[in-house]
Amino acid sequence: MNIDDLMALAKRRGLFWPGAEIYGGASGVYDYGDVGALLKRNWESLWLSFFVDTNPDYHLIEGANIMPEAPLVSSGHASRFNDVIVGCSKCKSFYRADVLLGDAGVKISEGASAEQMGRALEENKVKCQSCRSTAWLPAKAFNMMIDVSLGPEKGDKGYLRPETAQSAYLNFFREFNILRKTLPLGLAIIGRAYRNEISPRQGLYRMRELVQAELQIFFDPENWRVDFGAVSGRKVNVHLYGKGADEKMTLQELVTKHGIPEFYAYHIGLIDVFYRDVLGVPEERIRFLEKGGDEKAFYNKVHMDIEVNVESWGGFKEVGGLHYRGDYDLTQHTKGSQQDHSVTIAERKFMPNVLELSFGVDRNVWMLIDVFYKKDGDRSVLKIRPFLAPYKAAIFSLQKEPEIDKMVETVYKELRPHFKVFLDQSGSIGRRYARMDEIGTPFCITVDYDSVSKGSDKFGTVTVRSRDDKAQVRLKIGELKDYISKATSFNAYGAFGFN
Amino acid sequence: MNIDDLMALAKRRGLFWPGAEIYGGASGVYDYGDVGALLKRNWESLWLSFFVDTNPDYHLIEGANIMPEAPLVSSGHASRFNDVIVGCSKCKSFYRADVLLGDAGVKISEGASAEQMGRALEENKVKCQSCRSTAWLPAKAFNMMIDVSLGPEKGDKGYLRPETAQSAYLNFFREFNILRKTLPLGLAIIGRAYRNEISPRQGLYRMRELVQAELQIFFDPENWRVDFGAVSGRKVNVHLYGKGADEKMTLQELVTKHGIPEFYAYHIGLIDVFYRDVLGVPEERIRFLEKGGDEKAFYNKVHMDIEVNVESWGGFKEVGGLHYRGDYDLTQHTKGSQQDHSVTIAERKFMPNVLELSFGVDRNVWMLIDVFYKKDGDRSVLKIRPFLAPYKAAIFSLQKEPEIDKMVETVYKELRPHFKVFLDQSGSIGRRYARMDEIGTPFCITVDYDSVSKGSDKFGTVTVRSRDDKAQVRLKIGELKDYISKATSFNAYGAFGFN
Repeated sequence: MNIDDLMALAKRRGLFWPGAEIYGGASGVYDYGDVGALLKRNWESLWLSFFVDTNPDYHLIEGANIMPEAPLVSSGHASRFNDVIVGCSKCKSFYRADVLLGDAGVKISEGASAEQMGRALEENKVKCQSCRSTAWLPAKAFNMMIDVSLGPEKGDKGYLRPETAQSAYLNFFREFNILRKTLPLGLAIIGRAYRNEISPRQGLYRMRELVQAELQIFFDPENWRVDFGAVSGRKVNVHLYGKGADEKMTLQELVTKHGIPEFYAYHIGLIDVFYRDVLGVPEERIRFLEKGGDEKAFYNKVHMDIEVNVESWGGFKEVGGLHYRGDYDLTQHTKGSQQDHSVTIAERKFMPNVLELSFGVDRNVWMLIDVFYKKDGDRSVLKIRPFLAPYKAAIFSLQKEPEIDKMVETVYKELRPHFKVFLDQSGSIGRRYARMDEIGTPFCITVDYDSVSKGSDKFGTVTVRSRDDKAQVRLKIGELKDYISKATSFNAYGAFGFN
Repeated sequence: MNIDDLMALAKRRGLFWPGAEIYGGASGVYDYGDVGALLKRNWESLWLSFFVDTNPDYHLIEGANIMPEAPLVSSGHASRFNDVIVGCSKCKSFYRADVLLGDAGVKISEGASAEQMGRALEENKVKCQSCRSTAWLPAKAFNMMIDVSLGPEKGDKGYLRPETAQSAYLNFFREFNILRKTLPLGLAIIGRAYRNEISPRQGLYRMRELVQAELQIFFDPENWRVDFGAVSGRKVNVHLYGKGADEKMTLQELVTKHGIPEFYAYHIGLIDVFYRDVLGVPEERIRFLEKGGDEKAFYNKVHMDIEVNVESWGGFKEVGGLHYRGDYDLTQHTKGSQQDHSVTIAERKFMPNVLELSFGVDRNVWMLIDVFYKKDGDRSVLKIRPFLAPYKAAIFSLQKEPEIDKMVETVYKELRPHFKVFLDQSGSIGRRYARMDEIGTPFCITVDYDSVSKGSDKFGTVTVRSRDDKAQVRLKIGELKDYISKATSFNAYGAFGFN
């Protein structure tokens, strides 16, 4: 699928579409429909149960989206959260310079200055994508934060937070004191972040309003024991900084040969388990891309992008990141807030370090559809794992009969307290199956004449058709709940060495 | 408790506190801590399972917080979402005129004009709350929306949505077409809304960034059958427009004697069930306040505030609303978007009407703490119903012993896949109980010497202490899951006539 195919599917099947669509659609903001909201929530719940709820020292919090200016001065966002933009002097179209250069096949470092990018545009005679002119206004730094003015005279300046991470850093001090002053301490947030993207595009890839799932782990850099042995032998695809190609190596090799800290390699392992073993993304489609030099944020000690090969985005694209941020964040907020964030544990005073696990929720939803939407003969099936499916089952009536309708209702009421069920009473049975296949519903339950015919040996039973192999079984109504629950639930705890 | 007491409790116990607190706190925006985020999510899940998931025609969606200008011109927010503000000419403090008048004991209609409010301030010699001056600048209308400027030249004007409702209205057209073109259709949203409040105050009452849980039901005004008989005999507290006092009457009387539509009265019943029977708010603390005349929004055909008597807010305060909005919303968006929103069902063409169930999530969280936080002898206990409790159980070790620690871990791992469990290993047992009492944890499990002494008849058992009566029972580890699950879970389906 290309971007247009995927977006058309998303609109047709209730997944997502541009915000304010009836007014022509807003740029870079999206709404989730009834099916998309369920899929997104399922991904979020899975993330939460896998990365956060498995550890008694990690907690979910929620932070406001509006932030005053001071903390974003401390964090560096007010001065440094910039992209280089350039405008066409003829038609006044504006572009992100790095995206424009990338589209033209010109390689440039993400950290290049405005001057460097401007020079590269001229030297390579890059054309305006609207009017084909090569006459550029001077490239300049452009702050990506969206600002708001509050109060009766609109004199209080604030920003929409550019990342959920800052909400965690701002709350570390209070949570550390509430949670018994021990480390590690994990603060997770699933919430919105905002960026004034110049050229929002590629569907849910580059958005002005996005949803992040981030876990900030605050730890003692001299004393953080992780169960590295549980994953050290695992082979992962990595692209190390300065190397020309992807390599497959064990996490132990990453530590021993490439100096990656053990706690960091352990979390590569966790993330790899999440994508490959839990979500089921094929091994060759996931890799960890190390950033170095001026490509990585200056405060990061180790920085890897989590990338998935997404056909509709044209190759490997970032869906998350793993960042060892050192003590940058708490040091900056200590200076800015005058509140000392260093801690004293076992008579040693130090500034906690931060390991950040960051995921773009919208990008992950898009990725799931791209990777798991398959042609299967004449069918189109979203073969996501059953625990991710928006609806676990659909219930159809095969004929229009009061007795059948009544049994459909009975089955519906029996199942809905246990998992999401979709009721579909109209249209041909083939079209109803097709619809459920396209949104990944693992089971379709059909009530027919036999189900309600007292003489039939099928009385009180229904047909259950399975999404992936189209196999049909006949089950008693009382058997449905356990049959479907067993096949569609996920327990993060029993699996993957967490116990 | 007064506001300061409740806020102190909230800060001490991980519930909530002002955003960017270490920088002095942002005005009117709050962050939820580890305990508060769980309580808030539990309320949201309960709301969702009670009002939305019980009906196969109702669906949760998600809408972006940033909206372009056009739909908010159509909805009337750009011109009419105003408060009257007034500034002190001496010290330049600004106030919402109605709040200032209310504080001074002057009665004025919510819909009064700037001129009327200005006159009322002068006539009653109302003083500035900062400098006691009575010299006011002219009162003026002030738009409450928070605007944003997007794009490379910041030329694209947008707003942070003032209510989640608009996201539902903007998506009705697509969802109606996806969901088989039938009515009623319910679109629910739990999300943030933004208002440039002049005087944010009273904790989570008047906020600049708030969370709403709203259900918009689109229906055919000539053909919407509700199961009114299931609730018609229920007595509720209402304060009808123009009446001097609260009255207790049946929903049937509301329909017969006061002309309230049946579908509307039915939803009063549902909401009353939610507050009294599900949340457990005492009957005398909840009432429905009808708005009329210039107090109600002009487009509402019937408008009632859902009020709870909240001690820390000084009496009955709005925690939600039930609004019969007629066809105002879809008619406006039809005009504004040029997209006809009328529908044709059974060969009749009409504009769907909207019934809105609107709830302030933050206000409801605050209300729960206010209503259910009790002194019980020398204890302070948050006696919320167990299914709302942030943690269902806590696990303590009574002594510091490797064998005991091991069993604590076993119990923790046994229970955590099934419900939220808090692990607390340090401090006196009394302080650990006190902490759990204050956040409403229904059960505290203690592992002691007997639990791990092979000779003891208590080997393999733990003490389970119940929050409300402090009664202790000794249970085998294998019995804990069912014992606690049974006492702390809620099934919206079996109860209250939904089946």
